[in-house]
Amino acid sequence: MEKVNIKQKLDSFSETWVPKIVGELNGQHVKVVKFEDEYVWHHHEVEDELFLVVEGRMEIHLRDQIVALDPGEFFIVPRGVEHKPVVPEGLASILLFEPATTRNTGNVDHGLTIEAADLKKI
Amino acid sequence: MEKVNIKQKLDSFSETWVPKIVGELNGQHVKVVKFEDEYVWHHHEVEDELFLVVEGRMEIHLRDQIVALDPGEFFIVPRGVEHKPVVPEGLASILLFEPATTRNTGNVDHGLTIEAADLKKI
Repeated sequence: MEKVNIKQKLDSFSETWVPKIVGELNGQHVKVVKFEDEYVWHHHEVEDELFLVVEGRMEIHLRDQIVALDPGEFFIVPRGVEHKPVVPEGLASILLFEPATTRNTGNVDHGLTIEAADLKKI
Repeated sequence: MEKVNIKQKLDSFSETWVPKIVGELNGQHVKVVKFEDEYVWHHHEVEDELFLVVEGRMEIHLRDQIVALDPGEFFIVPRGVEHKPVVPEGLASILLFEPATTRNTGNVDHGLTIEAADLKKI
């Protein structure tokens, strides 16, 4: 039972595309992650995923549209919907809210894949 | 499938202590709410509740401590833990993450009570 300062958590690491768990409630995880460049197209079979931009700017590419997010904006990708996070310039710091079971690259095996059970709490 | 700008949602209403639903995923709701002065002591029997401060400053009073939250900070109140949100000065704008079943005043019946099914989406 400690409060969490989101920017302090983000300042504590520099690696990209590796979500860190900063909160857990109701079977869900709150995570922070830094994004850079492009991720891989993937979907999550049974998890809806919320992306909230803390710093920087990101795009969520869907097969039929691109959603551009500035700080203070969020988007929920419903389960089953293919998506690709993209950062057009520099870095973006993101808060994720999703079930604790969520695998970062979803249905895709990739060099960036981290199994949900292997994510670190910070 | 539309992005949400949190501050735009908060700017769209002025009433206090009435959470508005701004997102839904995995059986959870994302809500925004404005707090002023003091709420009532209560707990939620089966729901953990996350308070993230967007603007202003709030305190979460627990029976054995007070947690002061500035913008960009969050705190998770575990199920069963009595708490009372307090705003020492002015208004505070808050983002809530909690199960869709959550009743705002939990186990307490109060003039501020709104049943979960009666909350509005904005």
